[in-house]
Amino acid sequence: MASRTSDPAELFTSALSGDRGALARLLSLIERGGQDARTIGRLTYPKSGNGYTVGITGAPGAGKSTLTSATIGHLRKQQLQVAVLAIDPSSPFTGGAILGDRVRMQDHATDTGVFIRSMATRGHLGGLSLATSEAIRLLDAVGCPWILVETVGVGQVEVEIVGKADTTVVVVNPGWGDSVQANKAGLMEIADVFVINKADRKGAEETRRDLEQMLDLSDLSHDAWRPPIVQTSAVSAEGVPEFWDTVIQHREFIQANGILAKRRAFRLREELSEIVQRRLELRARDICTGDQWDKLQQQVLDHVIDPWAAADDMLKGIGA
Amino acid sequence: MASRTSDPAELFTSALSGDRGALARLLSLIERGGQDARTIGRLTYPKSGNGYTVGITGAPGAGKSTLTSATIGHLRKQQLQVAVLAIDPSSPFTGGAILGDRVRMQDHATDTGVFIRSMATRGHLGGLSLATSEAIRLLDAVGCPWILVETVGVGQVEVEIVGKADTTVVVVNPGWGDSVQANKAGLMEIADVFVINKADRKGAEETRRDLEQMLDLSDLSHDAWRPPIVQTSAVSAEGVPEFWDTVIQHREFIQANGILAKRRAFRLREELSEIVQRRLELRARDICTGDQWDKLQQQVLDHVIDPWAAADDMLKGIGA
Repeated sequence: MASRTSDPAELFTSALSGDRGALARLLSLIERGGQDARTIGRLTYPKSGNGYTVGITGAPGAGKSTLTSATIGHLRKQQLQVAVLAIDPSSPFTGGAILGDRVRMQDHATDTGVFIRSMATRGHLGGLSLATSEAIRLLDAVGCPWILVETVGVGQVEVEIVGKADTTVVVVNPGWGDSVQANKAGLMEIADVFVINKADRKGAEETRRDLEQMLDLSDLSHDAWRPPIVQTSAVSAEGVPEFWDTVIQHREFIQANGILAKRRAFRLREELSEIVQRRLELRARDICTGDQWDKLQQQVLDHVIDPWAAADDMLKGIGA
Repeated sequence: MASRTSDPAELFTSALSGDRGALARLLSLIERGGQDARTIGRLTYPKSGNGYTVGITGAPGAGKSTLTSATIGHLRKQQLQVAVLAIDPSSPFTGGAILGDRVRMQDHATDTGVFIRSMATRGHLGGLSLATSEAIRLLDAVGCPWILVETVGVGQVEVEIVGKADTTVVVVNPGWGDSVQANKAGLMEIADVFVINKADRKGAEETRRDLEQMLDLSDLSHDAWRPPIVQTSAVSAEGVPEFWDTVIQHREFIQANGILAKRRAFRLREELSEIVQRRLELRARDICTGDQWDKLQQQVLDHVIDPWAAADDMLKGIGA
């Protein structure tokens, strides 16, 4: 049973041939970070680039999971495979389990065309941000054509994570203003598509007018794309096909005019800087421990050398 | 006129012989950071260790400047020289000027036994924290026996900066609870001496009981030293001699039992780690610009190499 191994390369071979257990184990290794995550990154990178990522964000309770679940249903009707990463920056809880408020997704638990995974902060030194990039790349590399990335809220970390998507969907509700007041401008900035979910409730039209007005004023129409506003009632899957058509339209738009390539290039540069920065932090931690460090500290305390000379000494091998 | 030079070594020689202009210019160089700050650090380190630093912190309006000014007066009566560093982490304003709310210190502006200097964040790459350490060391090296470090508030940065002092004084007022609620525990932890300033106002006794109770409960008596509580009315200098006697008692206590040496060793280690960390950050900034980095980024974008290989390539010279 190849899938009982913990060797990243073997696991990746199994995952490529459709072994979901191997895929789950690879995601656990990514979450944990370290050398294995790096090995997985190097394996997946050459095979990635064909999947398309849709980020779904919005205030807690807006109905993101319900919309995600309805979207899965919509894609499955067309025999399309789909993977979901549910990202929770605030929770240490993890391990591939489905989070409590995501029970609706369990409708798809037995469907082999659907892969659902929760991720939280475990031990990845680059944090959830780098781990999410690596997880998306893995799902892409094993052949998932659609990857949905769902976050639990609309805080800074969530916005950063959803920025790793090709198309970003912001889910609001009638009367949304109160729940996301603090971050309205941030949401306007990242949204490629707005969804007014629970649109059967009172106030949907006011919310639409509110959004249209903000779009008029904000001049935040990304690259000549004015974020469309779609109304859904995700519990009954009403409006979901229209929602998805809008996502497809955005994809075609940014593919045709080169924006997608530019966005991906920008993200890759960001990721590269993140990798360098993390590596240097680890290096600083390494340097400031050990016998040589202790000895130099003592020499500084004894006024044999000064702190700058000590730093020079520690760093001389690394040109810093 | 030796003091018109901008050479750190010449300026330091002048400052050692009592040239206040040279001293002011050295502090400006420290504030600016960079190579000159480093040179000054190396010059001052062997000559430092004899001065004693007293940190004075407390909520805005507590009367820190008035207490500082009254303390200067008390020390000058005994013909003692004193230097004051007024640190403002929030203000970009600087340049040796006396801050607006520190006008009372101008009483001492013409006294050559007093040196007063404001410092803010200018360009020092290690931030105000490293710059403060270096400024204290300079004042110490040119022979100031007493260095008072005053901060504008009680935020995290202020607490960190005041942590560079040998004795830390926390100034509160009658009814102090409201103004520093969020940081009460932090203040209890750093205080070596409590001053209830404006003690002529209503509520001074309640504040004393409040503090005593917190000291009883908190078990934060540092190294068997229970922070004494002194009452002052700094405007009229009432209680200031008693306050200063308490500082002297604390100094004698920590000198006699070796705590002072331990504290200074700890601070020096912290500073050393800070220097190493900053140096690596600078190195990372160097690395993430420039032609080689551009070329590697392009190779990653073209899928010629993966991001980890690119990071390896950039960092191979520094062993990270």
